[in-house]
Amino acid sequence: MNTLEVCLSPDLLNEFDLQGKTAVIVDILRATSCMTAGIGSGVKEIRPLASLDECMRFRSHGFLLAGERNGVMVEGFDIGNSPFEYMERKVLGKRIAVTTTNGTVAIERSAAAREIIIGSFLNLSAVEKTLLNNRQDVVIVCAGWKGKINLEDTLFAGALVERLTDRFKLPCDAALIARSTWLHMKGDLLSHVLKSSHAARLRNLGIEDDIAYCLETDLFECCPKVHEKTILSD
Amino acid sequence: MNTLEVCLSPDLLNEFDLQGKTAVIVDILRATSCMTAGIGSGVKEIRPLASLDECMRFRSHGFLLAGERNGVMVEGFDIGNSPFEYMERKVLGKRIAVTTTNGTVAIERSAAAREIIIGSFLNLSAVEKTLLNNRQDVVIVCAGWKGKINLEDTLFAGALVERLTDRFKLPCDAALIARSTWLHMKGDLLSHVLKSSHAARLRNLGIEDDIAYCLETDLFECCPKVHEKTILSD
Repeated sequence: MNTLEVCLSPDLLNEFDLQGKTAVIVDILRATSCMTAGIGSGVKEIRPLASLDECMRFRSHGFLLAGERNGVMVEGFDIGNSPFEYMERKVLGKRIAVTTTNGTVAIERSAAAREIIIGSFLNLSAVEKTLLNNRQDVVIVCAGWKGKINLEDTLFAGALVERLTDRFKLPCDAALIARSTWLHMKGDLLSHVLKSSHAARLRNLGIEDDIAYCLETDLFECCPKVHEKTILSD
Repeated sequence: MNTLEVCLSPDLLNEFDLQGKTAVIVDILRATSCMTAGIGSGVKEIRPLASLDECMRFRSHGFLLAGERNGVMVEGFDIGNSPFEYMERKVLGKRIAVTTTNGTVAIERSAAAREIIIGSFLNLSAVEKTLLNNRQDVVIVCAGWKGKINLEDTLFAGALVERLTDRFKLPCDAALIARSTWLHMKGDLLSHVLKSSHAARLRNLGIEDDIAYCLETDLFECCPKVHEKTILSD
């Protein structure tokens, strides 16, 4: 039986051995939800980058630029970090270079994994199916917020653990903690997430619709993958 | 209103500002449970130390030596890391130098706090009372296991958060996660903890009685404090 572990913050990744394993990157509000919505809607490629400068260099290669810093769209960029923008006509068939606060860090620090996939509530069942087909050990890597653990990524981890409990060994307590948090909150998910620290920050930015959308389950059947530092359809 | 935060692993402490705050150190299996049982039973002083060598140097100062490495008592020491040993006649009125895998690390990394107290289920109400009297911001520091988050420390954090929810602001999601985990598991605490990774390690050492004892609530009314690197009665 393969193992399923949960890393609740990228700052804890040094305690995990990713070699030979599948890493599921989770940044529910909003990076991996946007990636799922984009790839699922026909965006050709999404390139995650750590810095604004790197991102801007992709303009000359024909990329659209997307990104936020502390939840606000970067000036001069084409789109911000709302999943709705990733489904607009202007991005279909296009390549997007994106810089986000936490999601990019989680992807880069997971480079040792054998395979890196993008997880969100929007493609929960597709992720589940991919992990069952892969037959590899799994580490769910929550992006958190500037190193701190956050609620929404933990809830997604818990939802995935609940679905996979009978098919994987759970050798780390963070998986049990995430699952319990999910089981305790899943009946009223939106209301709990709206009380979280990140949602409080985002609420000030007027994006309640984004938050509600990012908690919808299985709107897309894709399971985006990181291939040579860029995100493509599976 | 003061704030109440939860740090689920010492490896995440750099994300927290401890200045001017009370740190509650938690290492349920078994360091802080032993400290509570010891101080509550009449041990005069408990000195936590990071290394075996440092610990042994305290022998010549009249200290008894206590400690474990990976759950096993250190050879040549007077007692191991069972709360029952901390209540034996031979340690009453004595000073104990102790080295443990995780608890000492958590205490040392919390040195910036204004006050450091020792928390366990065994003195839960005493800790609650101290925090309410202190009127300071609080960070609950879970010792974890070699940097990884563990279930039993998270459960204690959740139990304390539940009691203090109406009297403190909860600005960090880890507090919500710990509380949910606690609320989901508290009806069958022992059985959940026995399924955790740490308990599985300890079960191999034959200390089920220790685990059950460390989950008992309010057997002691003391709230041990760290004063100049040593643990004393409050």
